[in-house]
Amino acid sequence: MAVNDSIFLHAHEAPGQQSLQRCDACGLELAERDASPECPQCGGLLAIIHRAPVDVMGAPLAANVIQHAFMQHCCAMPMGHPSGVWRFQSLVMPTAGEAITSHPEGNTPLLTRTRVSAWAGCEGLLLKHEGYNPTGSFKDRGMTVGTTQAVRTGATAVACASTGNTSAALASYAAQAGIPGLVFVPAGKVALGKMAQTLAYGATTLLVRGDFDDCLRLVQDASRELGIYLLNSINPWRVEGQKTIVFEILQQLGWQAPDFIVLPAGNLGNTAAFGKALREAHALGLIDRLPRLVSVQAAGAAPFARAFREGFTARHRVQAETIATAIRIGDPASWDRAVRAIRETDGIVLSVTDEEIIDAKVQIDAAGVGCEPASAASVAGVKQLVQNGIITAADRVVAVLTGHVLKDPGMLVELHQRADFAQANRPLEIDATVQAVADVLKTRSGASR
Amino acid sequence: MAVNDSIFLHAHEAPGQQSLQRCDACGLELAERDASPECPQCGGLLAIIHRAPVDVMGAPLAANVIQHAFMQHCCAMPMGHPSGVWRFQSLVMPTAGEAITSHPEGNTPLLTRTRVSAWAGCEGLLLKHEGYNPTGSFKDRGMTVGTTQAVRTGATAVACASTGNTSAALASYAAQAGIPGLVFVPAGKVALGKMAQTLAYGATTLLVRGDFDDCLRLVQDASRELGIYLLNSINPWRVEGQKTIVFEILQQLGWQAPDFIVLPAGNLGNTAAFGKALREAHALGLIDRLPRLVSVQAAGAAPFARAFREGFTARHRVQAETIATAIRIGDPASWDRAVRAIRETDGIVLSVTDEEIIDAKVQIDAAGVGCEPASAASVAGVKQLVQNGIITAADRVVAVLTGHVLKDPGMLVELHQRADFAQANRPLEIDATVQAVADVLKTRSGASR
Repeated sequence: MAVNDSIFLHAHEAPGQQSLQRCDACGLELAERDASPECPQCGGLLAIIHRAPVDVMGAPLAANVIQHAFMQHCCAMPMGHPSGVWRFQSLVMPTAGEAITSHPEGNTPLLTRTRVSAWAGCEGLLLKHEGYNPTGSFKDRGMTVGTTQAVRTGATAVACASTGNTSAALASYAAQAGIPGLVFVPAGKVALGKMAQTLAYGATTLLVRGDFDDCLRLVQDASRELGIYLLNSINPWRVEGQKTIVFEILQQLGWQAPDFIVLPAGNLGNTAAFGKALREAHALGLIDRLPRLVSVQAAGAAPFARAFREGFTARHRVQAETIATAIRIGDPASWDRAVRAIRETDGIVLSVTDEEIIDAKVQIDAAGVGCEPASAASVAGVKQLVQNGIITAADRVVAVLTGHVLKDPGMLVELHQRADFAQANRPLEIDATVQAVADVLKTRSGASR
Repeated sequence: MAVNDSIFLHAHEAPGQQSLQRCDACGLELAERDASPECPQCGGLLAIIHRAPVDVMGAPLAANVIQHAFMQHCCAMPMGHPSGVWRFQSLVMPTAGEAITSHPEGNTPLLTRTRVSAWAGCEGLLLKHEGYNPTGSFKDRGMTVGTTQAVRTGATAVACASTGNTSAALASYAAQAGIPGLVFVPAGKVALGKMAQTLAYGATTLLVRGDFDDCLRLVQDASRELGIYLLNSINPWRVEGQKTIVFEILQQLGWQAPDFIVLPAGNLGNTAAFGKALREAHALGLIDRLPRLVSVQAAGAAPFARAFREGFTARHRVQAETIATAIRIGDPASWDRAVRAIRETDGIVLSVTDEEIIDAKVQIDAAGVGCEPASAASVAGVKQLVQNGIITAADRVVAVLTGHVLKDPGMLVELHQRADFAQANRPLEIDATVQAVADVLKTRSGASR
């Protein structure tokens, strides 16, 4: 029997429940407050299925009514919810109530920068900068929802195995919820500089005597045996939060879908979440057509791009290596969901080299925006699609930047002092004279910007 | 003759002009597009004076009409302006038009965190987190307006002498405007790690052979002789942008003024800007009473706090020394304006020790929020005022956090590994067993949070 893959709960399903969790693989259904990290029957990924919004008489809400409700929430007003995630609560976690643990987060801008557009060859390029979330990455959107679920389920602690943006976000939200946060990393293999936010926000960093696989196994065992709520990348509530990147883009565009949404792709969690968001928005009539999703992998960590070229006939694993650490993943967890997202949106998967990523990052930085290295993969991907003729002059394209430039300042200082880096912006030593300044200005004004 | 200190232009003044610049000291008036960094007659500080908003018949707008106009702008909507600065354009730079250079910025949240409130002893404490601006500090609010003025005046370049948040913001906005950005710092005295954002955003860092005074003199000479627009701390348009921190707080509170607004104070630019914003908001009827402004200095850089205790009978200078580098200023530039702001709002100036600043920072960090060291001075100040009985249980207090925790990650890692720091959050090494995790959890749950 085919697994139920309905987008929303049907009227006759799950009476009295607003949302439930359903296994992608075997279709097993769990109550929405069940804290299982994966399907207890088959180990498959869990997804959240909501009841579509209805009016007091039980009739489905018209799209414009739903859109109007979203408009009642703004970060600068005293009414409504100031979060760019919880504004969309009816499609994220309708029954959260008092459990909501929000920084607030979201409300990230859509930027236009002529320098970046010109470099990519795409005049209609908009940058959705998720690095402007409170802890500096898109992870906050999923963590606010995941942590709210931890509060609802009475978790003894929340945990993940991560050295990067995930642990920073987990630490911040755990602190706010007043729940101990645990971050598992292999002992002796992590530079503490990467953990600055995690330490500051007060999560406990556990240096596990073993390798990364031992960490993963331990965090899962501990979650089962100790009532610790697992906030790893496949957590279904984190997916619900990440959906709001798409909802917010659509709202900012007046619910006119762009032609392409382009994003960096490693573990494929965002590709999966974006696909789910678009599916739901389209089913509710919030948009009348689907944008094409474009997932961009780093060439050294591109099993999904290879599978796309082969028509998704096989799942691949690779030994990942790229400068873009946030997408350095060889065996992506959300594979099947991402395949569905790409198929349903007539999507595209491609890969870009580390050189292309650095080139794109230098352009984004020098436009006064800046981003984490992995973020730049999306803009590098746009450039490639323009060169291939797939993105054309009239297209409206949204590229997602996932992290803030301040997430990796050491890399910047090193890069801009390297003698062999043509685009290095080296400091200039001058005498304290106006003539010396005039000379610099002459060079600068003449340089191509 | 007394200098004209009217809050808005009177009907008969400056016909045909929406705004002008007026010298605080001698009253000289300049056109709004004049690029002078200070009064060309007496060297005094320039201030921007606007015409109060009027309707098409020339009658003053009612407060609720002005408030309604501000509401038409939201970061998540396609209509209006997405910036938390330009939302208030009629009180910032009404005639900016096409010159506006906006990231966008602002739209920063008002946070409540029980842990911080409990530590400070102030239940009604709200944190206005300006570190959530695009480059990580409140400086973006002034830079968007200052850079817009540079565009309007046809500047050949923009410049400042700064090693910190100012240079990062200048570099970002100069890049966006397509104007060369110049940052003057003394050669051999600045760690390049501090300049990571400036380098990335493509401003030219000039290492001047000389000390900081030589830098200041050079940047002023160069601005006069080379058509470079000076974006230093006394730039009157930067003040206009910084006013919007207050406007946004008031809007977020439904135009009900809080009892206190507390902010870190070094160069006194924000104290001056906050005073101007409150004066204007009160004159327009946007609020019906003034909150008390509280400026908090670091004990090692507290000339203004000393002068306050002496009834502002004298101006002081000190050799500044504090861990809070962003407010390490011995001779504040906006002194007289800050005195006016404190007097008009029945304000308070106090100082807190570096130990109090670190204590406050550790609490803000461990609440999952985080901030730059200088930011924590405001919360340390709140605690002191609660202990002195000046802030009482019923009071609503807004404390401003000026910078993001990611602005100084090195300090965090060092702090949390220090053997002599009682609140250090040290990583724990454990065996890869569930029992080891359970043991950690037992300790964590018992620890006071």
